[in-house]
Amino acid sequence: MSISSFYPPQRILMGPGPTDVHPKVLQALSRPTIGHLDPAFIGMMDEVRTLLQYAFQTENGCTMAVSAPGSAGMEACFVNLIEPGDKVVVCINGVFGNRMAENVVRSGGQLVKVEDDWGRPVSPDKLEEALKAHPDARIVAFVHAETSTGVLSDAKKLCSLAKQHNCLSIVDAVTSLGGVPLFVDDWGIDAIYSGTQKCLSSVPGISPVSFSDAAVAKIKGRKTPVQSWFLDQSLVMSYWGGKQKRSYHHTAPVNALYAVHESLLNLREEGLSNAWQRHAEQHETLRLGLEKLGISFIVDEACRLPQLNTVAIPDGVDDETVRSRLLDHYNLEIGSGLGAFTGEVWRIGLMGYGARAENVALCLRALEETLN
Amino acid sequence: MSISSFYPPQRILMGPGPTDVHPKVLQALSRPTIGHLDPAFIGMMDEVRTLLQYAFQTENGCTMAVSAPGSAGMEACFVNLIEPGDKVVVCINGVFGNRMAENVVRSGGQLVKVEDDWGRPVSPDKLEEALKAHPDARIVAFVHAETSTGVLSDAKKLCSLAKQHNCLSIVDAVTSLGGVPLFVDDWGIDAIYSGTQKCLSSVPGISPVSFSDAAVAKIKGRKTPVQSWFLDQSLVMSYWGGKQKRSYHHTAPVNALYAVHESLLNLREEGLSNAWQRHAEQHETLRLGLEKLGISFIVDEACRLPQLNTVAIPDGVDDETVRSRLLDHYNLEIGSGLGAFTGEVWRIGLMGYGARAENVALCLRALEETLN
Repeated sequence: MSISSFYPPQRILMGPGPTDVHPKVLQALSRPTIGHLDPAFIGMMDEVRTLLQYAFQTENGCTMAVSAPGSAGMEACFVNLIEPGDKVVVCINGVFGNRMAENVVRSGGQLVKVEDDWGRPVSPDKLEEALKAHPDARIVAFVHAETSTGVLSDAKKLCSLAKQHNCLSIVDAVTSLGGVPLFVDDWGIDAIYSGTQKCLSSVPGISPVSFSDAAVAKIKGRKTPVQSWFLDQSLVMSYWGGKQKRSYHHTAPVNALYAVHESLLNLREEGLSNAWQRHAEQHETLRLGLEKLGISFIVDEACRLPQLNTVAIPDGVDDETVRSRLLDHYNLEIGSGLGAFTGEVWRIGLMGYGARAENVALCLRALEETLN
Repeated sequence: MSISSFYPPQRILMGPGPTDVHPKVLQALSRPTIGHLDPAFIGMMDEVRTLLQYAFQTENGCTMAVSAPGSAGMEACFVNLIEPGDKVVVCINGVFGNRMAENVVRSGGQLVKVEDDWGRPVSPDKLEEALKAHPDARIVAFVHAETSTGVLSDAKKLCSLAKQHNCLSIVDAVTSLGGVPLFVDDWGIDAIYSGTQKCLSSVPGISPVSFSDAAVAKIKGRKTPVQSWFLDQSLVMSYWGGKQKRSYHHTAPVNALYAVHESLLNLREEGLSNAWQRHAEQHETLRLGLEKLGISFIVDEACRLPQLNTVAIPDGVDDETVRSRLLDHYNLEIGSGLGAFTGEVWRIGLMGYGARAENVALCLRALEETLN
């Protein structure tokens, strides 16, 4: 087998992630590797924590980047907070809610499902009902921005219900962080995870997480060890944590963290509310253009994610033919449907650095030419 | 807090890893990100598998790169192969053997320890004794090259004992892959994991793994789900596997895999036996130079790793003072001792791209100047 260096095509990434990576982030990524206990690196990790606290709008000391993709960030939240037998209410309205449920079962938790239709937000009423029916529930989990459907749920309301019923909350913010308003402390979120390859516009592979004091207390009070050694937050914190001497847990993904640092710096320089507004504005341009093409959204306007536009594939149009044409002719990637939505929808991402006028214009023109 | 872009110092990395990254690998790392289901990316993944098969000297179809560091690769092997109650013999002669034991317990396995002194190889006789005493053992696990002590164990012999006693073998090759002879198929290794930041000279964050047919059969025959969703190999294989359509599991760390691809290509271009010989030769130069400085190895010559030289800190010399001087004045990183060896030893890495004459010369001269 003849193999040579891999030179990827230059794509425009408007799927559900990874999204266009900012050029400054790619530059940061390839700076010289240094040791994971080098004082210079430790200093940079402290900055990453500060920048993540800004992005999450939290003062949680236990804020860090898990050395693996969002799915591992999800698992980190579940395996650390669930002890065998804990009752956990999971709100499901798409693929990632189902993945949360899977995590509960594999962590030895007792699963209570609250289900909503795909394309609809999580219903606070149904959650409240479930919490009343299960007064012994310990944790409520839901997805803030469902990547499989493009739906935004009311995280503030859902977390407040959790708190009223003495539950900790676990929130999936993989697609929401940096794209729509999110206030970890104000909303009382106890455990949250995200990914770097969505609205942060960094490369995939790292998962920012944050735990409230209440969550940390539950972790510290565990009677059983966390089933994952790699994701055991008490151990990881001895490396990421505080002002004390750092102790080795695993070798940090040094260069990927350079990239995360740079992407978070970009976000702070732009400012969170400016970033949220930019996503909203680009979404509005895209929406108008898509509607002119006769393409309709499958999500109600009230709970539509600006950064992930889920639209119905027009009748008589072949999913794969169109996406292949966009990729091959325009180097443009849009996302296919996932799970129950396969073949039914496209997911058009406008995330982070990808949410800019030239991408929207290209996407609209390319779709117009391809569909006609 | 004033934060700006992070420009790391240019270090020479001669610790236990991360090691010097080849410039071509850093270039590959920063190429444009593409989608994790892009046909171009899928093609590259196939090449990564082929190149990993070469590096591991295996024809195992189930060969891939775990999207997280070596510790996660370790965990992937244990959580997939152990079902609750399985008896697992772990040979411990350093930090990473202990970590394996921790993984067994957290996976619900029944742990049998075979312990050897730090700085000594795993004793085949003790393993045989343990296997005779525990005829119901299902798995034998050991570290090929102990990163905490610089000791090489006889993987061929240990795997053959495992097989004689109807056990599967799990081998830690984090530090051995690419640095010393390793033949997965010939030695009958059933599950093996490594890291990219050692003798492969790529950036940290990815863990190559490979599973034999017997290991895959055990995974497929499980009666209980793998406790980790993220590391569940049956699910991951639906993304990495075969010629069929790839299905989404998690978002692959696209750019990190570009780097792994390039580093494996470097290894194949050099040739495994040339790489092994280069490590041996550079080790020999370093050894002679260190001995001239009156610095002695703590590991017997017969089981000494060329790529990780563990030496006693000379009497009256302060560990941290010397390492800080090397780092600050020469930009040279060498490794401290780990666990029981903290303050007692230095670990001088000669791994992958780091194993070259200019590094050895710098290290010897810098140590000479610093110690005198």
